[in-house]
Amino acid sequence: MGIDKKIKAGDVRAASRLIRDIEDSIPAAKVTIKSIFSLTGKAQVVGITGSPGVGKSTLVDGLIEASRKKEKTVGVLAVDPTSPFTGGATLGDRIRMQRHAEDPGVFIRSLATRGSLGGLSKAVGDAIHVMDAMGKDMVLVETVGTGQQEVEIIHYAHTVLVILVPGMGDEIQAIKAGIMEIADIFVINKADRDGASKLQRELMAMLDMSRIAPGGWRPPVITVGSSFKPDDFEKDVGRLSATILEHYEYLVKSNLIGDRLRRKTIHELNEALRSSILEPVLRVLVSTGELDRMVERLLSKESDPCSLAEEVAEKYLQGCI
Amino acid sequence: MGIDKKIKAGDVRAASRLIRDIEDSIPAAKVTIKSIFSLTGKAQVVGITGSPGVGKSTLVDGLIEASRKKEKTVGVLAVDPTSPFTGGATLGDRIRMQRHAEDPGVFIRSLATRGSLGGLSKAVGDAIHVMDAMGKDMVLVETVGTGQQEVEIIHYAHTVLVILVPGMGDEIQAIKAGIMEIADIFVINKADRDGASKLQRELMAMLDMSRIAPGGWRPPVITVGSSFKPDDFEKDVGRLSATILEHYEYLVKSNLIGDRLRRKTIHELNEALRSSILEPVLRVLVSTGELDRMVERLLSKESDPCSLAEEVAEKYLQGCI
Repeated sequence: MGIDKKIKAGDVRAASRLIRDIEDSIPAAKVTIKSIFSLTGKAQVVGITGSPGVGKSTLVDGLIEASRKKEKTVGVLAVDPTSPFTGGATLGDRIRMQRHAEDPGVFIRSLATRGSLGGLSKAVGDAIHVMDAMGKDMVLVETVGTGQQEVEIIHYAHTVLVILVPGMGDEIQAIKAGIMEIADIFVINKADRDGASKLQRELMAMLDMSRIAPGGWRPPVITVGSSFKPDDFEKDVGRLSATILEHYEYLVKSNLIGDRLRRKTIHELNEALRSSILEPVLRVLVSTGELDRMVERLLSKESDPCSLAEEVAEKYLQGCI
Repeated sequence: MGIDKKIKAGDVRAASRLIRDIEDSIPAAKVTIKSIFSLTGKAQVVGITGSPGVGKSTLVDGLIEASRKKEKTVGVLAVDPTSPFTGGATLGDRIRMQRHAEDPGVFIRSLATRGSLGGLSKAVGDAIHVMDAMGKDMVLVETVGTGQQEVEIIHYAHTVLVILVPGMGDEIQAIKAGIMEIADIFVINKADRDGASKLQRELMAMLDMSRIAPGGWRPPVITVGSSFKPDDFEKDVGRLSATILEHYEYLVKSNLIGDRLRRKTIHELNEALRSSILEPVLRVLVSTGELDRMVERLLSKESDPCSLAEEVAEKYLQGCI
């Protein structure tokens, strides 16, 4: 059986291997990704984002549980920011989630950011495709940090959850810093802590001020209590899970799903172009030693980066400059 | 007088305009950047990074003050994360810093992340060059967020400050998440808060465990008290300022400065190549409507992104595929 057929059949080993190959930029992975592309587009992709320490993994674990109760299958992709030096994932504390390891309806993988050439974004997109092609009903993508990376999740997700906790300092500042507009659902986690209702009030006030089109989606603010009180936690996460499905239904009913799909597609094409256009040129420059010579010329201030890059473009591009 | 001469002479208006043009990707800016490149490489570039709310702007303000006392001139570049939708900078609260606006030895500008094509990194590098060419002794680059962006600052900075505050949740997790290795100096800000000494102990323990080469630089941990007690704050920031200079002296004495310079140069060349190779192709695809047609083919699952990108590469690349 070909790898694409295995993936379609939900083969965990084939899927894991493919995701590892995607992460390591193994050329063969490209061929498989091509062959499974037509199987994709069925899963609801949910981005889960927030600063380190807000409890994303715990929430993801709760959401897996809630989905399984509705007999929905789930893929989870944890995107780890990685040191540019060590090259390995550093967050290993997803032990709790491992209790789902035996459940064939759940597939959990993490993805580390290895290269510095911005390949992560493409790898995330491809790994989502793998889980989608496996037939998972929902793909949860957990990202860490509040930088560029988070904002990128909107290119892939149908629904974006922004997780906040009370008392982490200037949450509202964090929200203002570009992440307000990407949220489809706000989650106040650890909502039994001091400051939860203040945070909720501030969020509500901010939403009141933001322009929402008539009939548009106003991001709900869902509070989730401590996971140390399992019953309450389960109830809260159940509510969150229902809201996630509601958002998808809203997208479908309002025809906005087409816009999101188009946005995803354009982004994906951009990433593929970067890989097919820029990387071959870099490979030639490295293998011929030309890159080293250019660096020496720059260090001696003999030339500047822009002029050198233009020389390269003249040599390797045709029909567009 | 040409713009390059004006920049060299420290003309604030010319420099501001050039940075704005860099941000807006105005083609003419490229020509000026080329002409000032040979003037660059003299300033100490200091990256200042940490989660929103840790007090980066207040520290930058203190560092400006400390540098001016030593009669050093300072450039400040505040990198704002921007909503992918609104396209404008969202953090306007740098009012305090504005008291330096009248001081000709201080030049403060902010840079927003506009495009989604990853142009920010290149813009940051170019804006640093402008301040460097103006003759500023030190360029402070303030970045927000804990994602990709922060890790990128190492490509531009000689010295990276990672700012933490007590009681923001899992600081240590944040540190582990890739930013540990980029820090040359740790700063515990708002160190009069509860938990400061615990945080300091944890940082020290982590540094004890990390391998530092004999004669290597062990990142010092500097505590800075509240800016509401001006005398203490000034003393603490004075210490920080001295440590920043010490780190630069260390780089020079140990010859590591050459490695950092090489790393900066390679990164800059990569960015320039992306701009000169990828962007012309995208421009042609957009202007001929080819991009739209490709998106339609993808939406109908007629083809996949990778195959389409390869077709484009075959058409526009020569001599490297």
